[in-house]
Amino acid sequence: MATSSSVSAAKGLVGVAVSSHGASSASYADCLALPSGLALSSLAGLSLSSAPSSRFLQQRRWSHQLRRRAAPARAAAVETVEAATAEALVEKSVNTIRFLAIDAVEKANSGHPGLPMGCAPMGHILYDDVMRYNPKNPYWFNRDRFVLSAGHGCMLQYALLHLAGYDSVKIEDIQQFRQWGSRTPGHPENFETPGVEVTTGPLGQGVANAVGLALAERHLAARFNKPDNEIVDHYTYVILGDGCQMEGIANEACSLAGHWGLGKLIAFYDDNHISIDGDTEIAFTEDVSARFEALGWHTIWVKNGNTGYTDIRAAIKDAKAIKDKPTLIKVTTTIGYGSPNKANSYSVHGSALGAKEVDATRQNLGWPYEPFHVPEDVKSHWSRHVPEGAALEAEWNAKFAVYENKYKEDAAELKAIISGEFPAGWEKALPIYTVESPADATRNLSQQNLNALVKVLPGLLGGSADLASSNMTLLKMFGDFQKGTPKEQNVRFGVREHGMGAICNGIALHSPGLLPYCATFFVFTDYMRAAMRISALCEAGVIYV
Amino acid sequence: MATSSSVSAAKGLVGVAVSSHGASSASYADCLALPSGLALSSLAGLSLSSAPSSRFLQQRRWSHQLRRRAAPARAAAVETVEAATAEALVEKSVNTIRFLAIDAVEKANSGHPGLPMGCAPMGHILYDDVMRYNPKNPYWFNRDRFVLSAGHGCMLQYALLHLAGYDSVKIEDIQQFRQWGSRTPGHPENFETPGVEVTTGPLGQGVANAVGLALAERHLAARFNKPDNEIVDHYTYVILGDGCQMEGIANEACSLAGHWGLGKLIAFYDDNHISIDGDTEIAFTEDVSARFEALGWHTIWVKNGNTGYTDIRAAIKDAKAIKDKPTLIKVTTTIGYGSPNKANSYSVHGSALGAKEVDATRQNLGWPYEPFHVPEDVKSHWSRHVPEGAALEAEWNAKFAVYENKYKEDAAELKAIISGEFPAGWEKALPIYTVESPADATRNLSQQNLNALVKVLPGLLGGSADLASSNMTLLKMFGDFQKGTPKEQNVRFGVREHGMGAICNGIALHSPGLLPYCATFFVFTDYMRAAMRISALCEAGVIYV
Repeated sequence: MATSSSVSAAKGLVGVAVSSHGASSASYADCLALPSGLALSSLAGLSLSSAPSSRFLQQRRWSHQLRRRAAPARAAAVETVEAATAEALVEKSVNTIRFLAIDAVEKANSGHPGLPMGCAPMGHILYDDVMRYNPKNPYWFNRDRFVLSAGHGCMLQYALLHLAGYDSVKIEDIQQFRQWGSRTPGHPENFETPGVEVTTGPLGQGVANAVGLALAERHLAARFNKPDNEIVDHYTYVILGDGCQMEGIANEACSLAGHWGLGKLIAFYDDNHISIDGDTEIAFTEDVSARFEALGWHTIWVKNGNTGYTDIRAAIKDAKAIKDKPTLIKVTTTIGYGSPNKANSYSVHGSALGAKEVDATRQNLGWPYEPFHVPEDVKSHWSRHVPEGAALEAEWNAKFAVYENKYKEDAAELKAIISGEFPAGWEKALPIYTVESPADATRNLSQQNLNALVKVLPGLLGGSADLASSNMTLLKMFGDFQKGTPKEQNVRFGVREHGMGAICNGIALHSPGLLPYCATFFVFTDYMRAAMRISALCEAGVIYV
Repeated sequence: MATSSSVSAAKGLVGVAVSSHGASSASYADCLALPSGLALSSLAGLSLSSAPSSRFLQQRRWSHQLRRRAAPARAAAVETVEAATAEALVEKSVNTIRFLAIDAVEKANSGHPGLPMGCAPMGHILYDDVMRYNPKNPYWFNRDRFVLSAGHGCMLQYALLHLAGYDSVKIEDIQQFRQWGSRTPGHPENFETPGVEVTTGPLGQGVANAVGLALAERHLAARFNKPDNEIVDHYTYVILGDGCQMEGIANEACSLAGHWGLGKLIAFYDDNHISIDGDTEIAFTEDVSARFEALGWHTIWVKNGNTGYTDIRAAIKDAKAIKDKPTLIKVTTTIGYGSPNKANSYSVHGSALGAKEVDATRQNLGWPYEPFHVPEDVKSHWSRHVPEGAALEAEWNAKFAVYENKYKEDAAELKAIISGEFPAGWEKALPIYTVESPADATRNLSQQNLNALVKVLPGLLGGSADLASSNMTLLKMFGDFQKGTPKEQNVRFGVREHGMGAICNGIALHSPGLLPYCATFFVFTDYMRAAMRISALCEAGVIYV
């Protein structure tokens, strides 16, 4: 038997180098759940799916470890060293994110280094340990979604996409940060940069988009999953900051997320206590966690967000264990972590550090590299995500083939939603009006059309901001999308126009074939104007009725 | 000694017929606070201010009671009868409000009877027992402010203004409800109907306006009150509904109200559980009270809002006792209370009851009168508000004369704020720019102008939505308006554009000489567009910089 300390060390290694993307039954979370007395060899009994798959890759690594475990005493020593190395490597990898952000903002002489420097650990854990995605196909249907609601900190996301192997963010793209025509604009744009799910920047909207993404997953899972084949199964992660929390739209959307019980929505609240005007104490002293609990969320507080990798991982595991509530993980971070003179001040929020402070930060974090350098061991550490991502998608494709074979009609419908292809002749379902048609209110005609279309367009769903009976938005064949009835297609947004608009943007951007519609009285479009502008910008394809 | 039951009865009478408007030191709240063993004669020692005053009027009523108390046994019997009569009279008076609303909506064949029918008791207590105002001068500076954030229920407010004796709402005006050019439009408009403080209807904005009104009171009190003369001293009351609560703007503004500790803001949450689409269960299941506690509010729940007059009064007393937090009084009501077939359903929210149901409601509530009838005893009950209001204002004027005598400069400044009169030649304070002036960013010039103007315009105050250093909105002579420093003039709104806009509307409508300004980046005016529209509509005079 290994000593318990070596098991802990091995666990550290598992958590770092052997992360499973959570794809298989013995997922990352399960690794974390290993009681310290449990030998890793107990994992040897895992059944394998057909190669190449993530499980296969995982097994390879585990086998490697298990081999090492054959000579316990020596293995313990080796593992302790390797674990230390692994932890050091993660630290180095996290610092790579920090410096890619610092260097890009410095070169552009504009941008927001503070958030990436503080949120690098949680971003790292998400993209390296937790999320399931395929870098070479950013649009793989069953990917986990990530939304950076605090979109100004986009260098965090660009650095992560780059490290993970997305072709949309090469190192040259990062060097072109904020330049005209580059794929790395000053805020994330889903139509510019594959891997970016939604366009964010206007605060509060990203988290509302994320609620839409999570609603879409919940709805599709309820409609298409079978006891023997959970073909829709992914999470939505979001990082939001103090600014997002202050915006009313975030409260609207999060109230709905709590109401709907969207358990696969996990939000990180980057609680760095700094906004542009200084310490948030000057305008924002509410108890955010208590508010989210009031909204029906599960909340967790990680107090050491700059360095507490284990705590962040444990929080995610806890969040995943709660199935019927979204989770807010409040992570206390330091804006501009690592900058000796500017950390924890608003000066690092939205400006380049300046050459002198960049040097000081390099010194402080022990970063001897040239700008934009990604150390080879960091590259190597991340390199597995391309084959693993391909394996994840292949595994899912195989699962879908089985599904298709058994559930032909459902599979065709789901395929239409995934591809966004309208069935041939769909437009023939539309009612025809002529000058002889009896006069009627346009909202009644709208309802006739919605109810005709939903019969041929499986992704149509939506509703009104508490005006369904006035806007005539009810789909008569369906009940309400609710916590207990998530397969239904009438969405009740309550009196929350702005949240409704942004949630619909999220639904639309989940899958090309999802066609959300929303409605209110024309004058109240004023309330949702910012969401409508984003919708137009990113061609979200929301239908306003 | 009277028996304790007769004291209770007398207390009932005090609470009903002898309400003091809370104007004097032995206020309505003090009456409620009488322990049941305490004889009313202990109040005889009250010192009086110069007549005519509310205290004088109060004293007259108390004397009347004290005389009655000379023959205890007989008095007890009389008082019990009178108290019963008084309670019955209040019930009748409350039903008057209900039927004025029912009849007006019925005649117009459009409108919202449901809220007035449910909120009549709390509205009644506010206007009849608690609030200090002068019906013949709706603009008396030191009046308590009332905002119906759920503006669609405006017949509640029109009925109350009518009963209280405002000239703006005669019975003929109520009969013209919702007619073109009438003073009783379908939602309250401050520029149409004196007595209406702010234009409401777009949900959530009223409560944000109320935060602005309460901020203004807090600020002016801090600037102008003296230990021997609290010349600024009034409350802001608001009724908001489920719809207001769902809107993000309400959360933004209420977060700030909690942050600022606006203890003289008392909000009634009409928790009737019904919105247009039906039971709020379909879209709104958060714990509102817990959310408000998270926002730093004091919360109280009155479960019997349809009939629980005593509980509502006690809640207001509790709210007033909390000096450093705003209070949310959640009042569980029945929408359309009294309508046997439509109460507690969305059908009574926004449509006339229909002749048959109006008859049934008349039967049910025992209302034998013709439409628009105000019974003589109800009229008589309310008639005291005209002389009392005049006395309140006279008393305050006398207080102001004393103030002016002692604090000349402050009095002049406060007068300018109350009147809105700019000092002669104020425009000479503005910087002059010529073609020779060095080029500069307009936001810098804006800041120069703000800082020049604040020296001559005492009511200038404002700030930015977390962009002060970008929008250049800081007044250099001043610190931040905060809980501990409410006399300062830089307001920190946080990242809450919509709330900022509506709070500024409230500040502007508090006093003609208050000149709030607010700022954000142009693109984010999308977030505050609905508030800007209202501002333009009601000529709130907010400055956007």
